[in-house]
Amino acid sequence: MDATLDGDVVRAGGDARQRFYDSRGYGRPTGSGVALAPVEAAHLLYRDDLDAVDGMGFREFLATDDRLVIRFLVYKDFRERGFYLSPAREDWVADPDPATDLVVYPQGKGPWDDEVRYRVRVAGERESVPATDLGGVVLAVVDEESEITYLETTRPAIEGGTDYDPSHTSGDLLADRVVLWDPPQNLYERGFFGQRLAGRGAEDGPLQLSLVEAAHLAREGILDLDVDPAAVVERGREVEGERFDRRLTVYAALRSKGLVPKTGFKFGADFRTYSTVETVENLGHSENLVRVLPAGYAFGPRELSLDARLAGGVHKRTVFALTASSGAIDWLAVERIRP
Amino acid sequence: MDATLDGDVVRAGGDARQRFYDSRGYGRPTGSGVALAPVEAAHLLYRDDLDAVDGMGFREFLATDDRLVIRFLVYKDFRERGFYLSPAREDWVADPDPATDLVVYPQGKGPWDDEVRYRVRVAGERESVPATDLGGVVLAVVDEESEITYLETTRPAIEGGTDYDPSHTSGDLLADRVVLWDPPQNLYERGFFGQRLAGRGAEDGPLQLSLVEAAHLAREGILDLDVDPAAVVERGREVEGERFDRRLTVYAALRSKGLVPKTGFKFGADFRTYSTVETVENLGHSENLVRVLPAGYAFGPRELSLDARLAGGVHKRTVFALTASSGAIDWLAVERIRP
Repeated sequence: MDATLDGDVVRAGGDARQRFYDSRGYGRPTGSGVALAPVEAAHLLYRDDLDAVDGMGFREFLATDDRLVIRFLVYKDFRERGFYLSPAREDWVADPDPATDLVVYPQGKGPWDDEVRYRVRVAGERESVPATDLGGVVLAVVDEESEITYLETTRPAIEGGTDYDPSHTSGDLLADRVVLWDPPQNLYERGFFGQRLAGRGAEDGPLQLSLVEAAHLAREGILDLDVDPAAVVERGREVEGERFDRRLTVYAALRSKGLVPKTGFKFGADFRTYSTVETVENLGHSENLVRVLPAGYAFGPRELSLDARLAGGVHKRTVFALTASSGAIDWLAVERIRP
Repeated sequence: MDATLDGDVVRAGGDARQRFYDSRGYGRPTGSGVALAPVEAAHLLYRDDLDAVDGMGFREFLATDDRLVIRFLVYKDFRERGFYLSPAREDWVADPDPATDLVVYPQGKGPWDDEVRYRVRVAGERESVPATDLGGVVLAVVDEESEITYLETTRPAIEGGTDYDPSHTSGDLLADRVVLWDPPQNLYERGFFGQRLAGRGAEDGPLQLSLVEAAHLAREGILDLDVDPAAVVERGREVEGERFDRRLTVYAALRSKGLVPKTGFKFGADFRTYSTVETVENLGHSENLVRVLPAGYAFGPRELSLDARLAGGVHKRTVFALTASSGAIDWLAVERIRP
């Protein structure tokens, strides 16, 4: 069967509606024919279900648009996994979102049903993806060798169950950390602030705080220092610039929501978080790896792949905290999936 | 026992030589006394083996130098792991290297022996570390909460056993990949170039090459394209800038050494490498994750931690290819260790 290009759709007549739409969910019906998006036409050409579009075979048709190759690869992959799917075009699907390329139906369902399994955005590994476009979509990244990585992005609720009010204390600023020489007993054991100078097993003795922990406690009026409390924030800015302010904002937000943030350095993240800490002695596993980024950030797919891969390997979830200078935070979780 | 500060050493007299050097490997003997580096004096103060240095206790002494805290934390950690160690000072140890802070002896050995277990460089998580300083040292990174991550850095031999000469072929440049519509049978199956358009299990049909694979084969005179071969490199530079040239240099070097590089995207790396490929059907695991960086690069410890952690989790090794515009490559391997 041949088809013709008509603007940005491919039209097939004859029994095309029955063959392509009714039985296999391609395109949209137009009388007894169908209107196909280029990616659908490419797939039908690839499968030899269409012979030509305006005389072009698969090879020629694929070369008509630079974006068509990677969309085709993702479209084909979902089809091979047993899904029907539609291009997220205006008037073709409910709630088309300009950040979405494809709408994937649950297995066994199709465009004639009204269920959606995934909303998919397609990106090449070299395209940058604004954080604001993510949150309700699966990002399908086609890498340079045409392998596809699926990253599910969501807007997670950040809620923990830690309930602890630290009591007043004092300490010294030492380079880029703070030492409490005589800390309240519970500050570490119940609040999981800092680390014992003597190491993990120690039950008492001096406590080291990170700059961000110290700045938070100083702002809350809980920590007195040998220097002006503003000096801690200044020290942080000296070593990290504006990033320190963003990290402090996120640290305070996590604590206020009942989570306990600790350094995520060993995982290359800003923080790891524990949702509920009763005592450090009975600590569970941390659940999230939090990376703090400025609002308006655009991701390179490679960094998303790296973070999500590492987090998956240690059974944690990557959460990005997109932090505006106003202090507003958008939380974005990213996890690798296999559709 | 009290000691006195004398320039950049701390001097202790009386029976200090016997107590500190002979029996426990602190400092260097000077008659019946010892000369101690500040980090050693701090540790002796911390352990109450020294009472004071010029009237200063541990708390006051630690505040005398901003760099002392993190060096003390690493020094203390090695002592607690059962090692003796010395500051890598001129005249104190053999081959002191300005990039090294501490020399650690094998367990059971000390400064009076001539064996070295680790040469250690100490860094705070916010300091940047030039790649040229690494290669023969263990980088001890003290994170903001004073936990220590040990990264062993080496200059690895890059040698593989893949023996394959591709035969001549042709293809089309399609956006940022190349499709060989009728590839030689062995190019994929023996050489592991590209990926079948039909997917992993396919035994024949069109082959997709990445830009870097295509540029390499075009330069070697093996691949004819529908465009000038320079257009592939140009396309690569359009999407990646100079990074594409560096990646192509490293790709060619790996192939020439008998390794097979494939994309490392799923691991956030430039390449994963297979040391010996006989056939794709009997492929082993890839051993290295290669990241390509410009010569003269300085690492943030956080990225080293992230890369080494991820690679360790998938039983691979992180290898950095520091690539000069001349084409010279320094290979640097980084692995997490527990001393």
